Amino acid sequence: MNMENAQTEHISKQFDVEMENIRSGVLTMGGLVERQLAGALHALGSEENIDLLTVVKAREKEINQMQVDIDHQCAQIIVRRQPAAIDLRTVLTISKVVSDLERIGDEAKKIARRAARLQGNDRLIKMQYFETIHAGELAQQALGRVLNAFARLDVNEAIAAYDSDEEIDIAFDVIMRQLIGFMMEDPRTISSGLDVLFVAKWIERIGDHAKNIAEAVVQIVMGKDVRHASLEEIKAELEQD
Amino acid sequence: MNMENAQTEHISKQFDVEMENIRSGVLTMGGLVERQLAGALHALGSEENIDLLTVVKAREKEINQMQVDIDHQCAQIIVRRQPAAIDLRTVLTISKVVSDLERIGDEAKKIARRAARLQGNDRLIKMQYFETIHAGELAQQALGRVLNAFARLDVNEAIAAYDSDEEIDIAFDVIMRQLIGFMMEDPRTISSGLDVLFVAKWIERIGDHAKNIAEAVVQIVMGKDVRHASLEEIKAELEQD
Repeated sequence: MNMENAQTEHISKQFDVEMENIRSGVLTMGGLVERQLAGALHALGSEENIDLLTVVKAREKEINQMQVDIDHQCAQIIVRRQPAAIDLRTVLTISKVVSDLERIGDEAKKIARRAARLQGNDRLIKMQYFETIHAGELAQQALGRVLNAFARLDVNEAIAAYDSDEEIDIAFDVIMRQLIGFMMEDPRTISSGLDVLFVAKWIERIGDHAKNIAEAVVQIVMGKDVRHASLEEIKAELEQD
Repeated sequence: MNMENAQTEHISKQFDVEMENIRSGVLTMGGLVERQLAGALHALGSEENIDLLTVVKAREKEINQMQVDIDHQCAQIIVRRQPAAIDLRTVLTISKVVSDLERIGDEAKKIARRAARLQGNDRLIKMQYFETIHAGELAQQALGRVLNAFARLDVNEAIAAYDSDEEIDIAFDVIMRQLIGFMMEDPRTISSGLDVLFVAKWIERIGDHAKNIAEAVVQIVMGKDVRHASLEEIKAELEQD
């Protein structure tokens, strides 16, 4: 191996290390967001969550900081390493992934806050929590799936997250119909019913963000922008390969 | 001027032209999104909008395609021109701006669809449209402001959009309180009341996206990540300069 090759290899190894750092940063951030969501769902299902909001607030700061740091690392690696092709695509896409992760964290924070306010509501509305928590678990599943898909660059796992998102949308529609029923039966439940409805809406949005991340993973692996493609189109493309 | 300088200048001019193309692409896309929002608000206020959904759907395709194209142009300019400092920051930030623009277009599409469904609702709920359209006009104002701010890299105009977002949030709270009142008084209005509530929620999210774009403009100009900074912190920073 001549000097030049050795140097190229050295630079390429450095690059790999930096890329790996960014990728593991995304997964660490994803883990924090997962905990934020788990905390929010716990708050919905439990009566004792006095300290929860403090934890949620602290964790949100951490998540926000990670987003800023990872974005900065992405810009740095572009300037210093001039990545091309799949590497550049990965870097540019990661910047979007962290933005979706940050927004999932945001929705989780809102759920936790609203859960604190919902404490002590009447039993009828409370029953709706179970449905909502179920939708929340689907969102957790979707988030777990896209993080796994990102970690292993696994398109099939990413596509599985599309299904989770659909299930969440269906769960949301069920919750909404049931809530309308309760509210019409007893208009005194309207105000707290809307609180539950907003929680369900935020969970639905978590599913949307998870789907965006799934699309990002597909984009990284397939080298194709699939954000506006249907699942059928993506699957057809995969079968061609 | 020696050959090398001449060549450098040529490359730099080419770069300027490409950057200008991307920037004007963003503004064209912004104009489309503005029209999408205007169409949606028109649908809310009018009785005749038979062809509206066709127009909205066609325009959405155009908006989506512009997002994909601009993202591609950004990746191309990074590979070919290796921009640094403010140029790189601009390119990376633009990719986020178009993602927020695309989502504003999405919300507008949802509003237009729901508006079509709301046709023929009872007068009581219909009165709420005026409030909602008012909130929508604030969102239009916010969008117009951030596009101007982006066009002229004007931090003050960007900051003005923060205020619009706050006004939208207040308008949303008013709508929500009034709707709860109507729904409690007459439970038959619950279902259509929720339709209006969702429309208001989508308008509120347009305000959020406009604020994200405002933050992006501040970030481009000030070279600082201000996504998680308060308006006071940004203003203090501006006064230091």
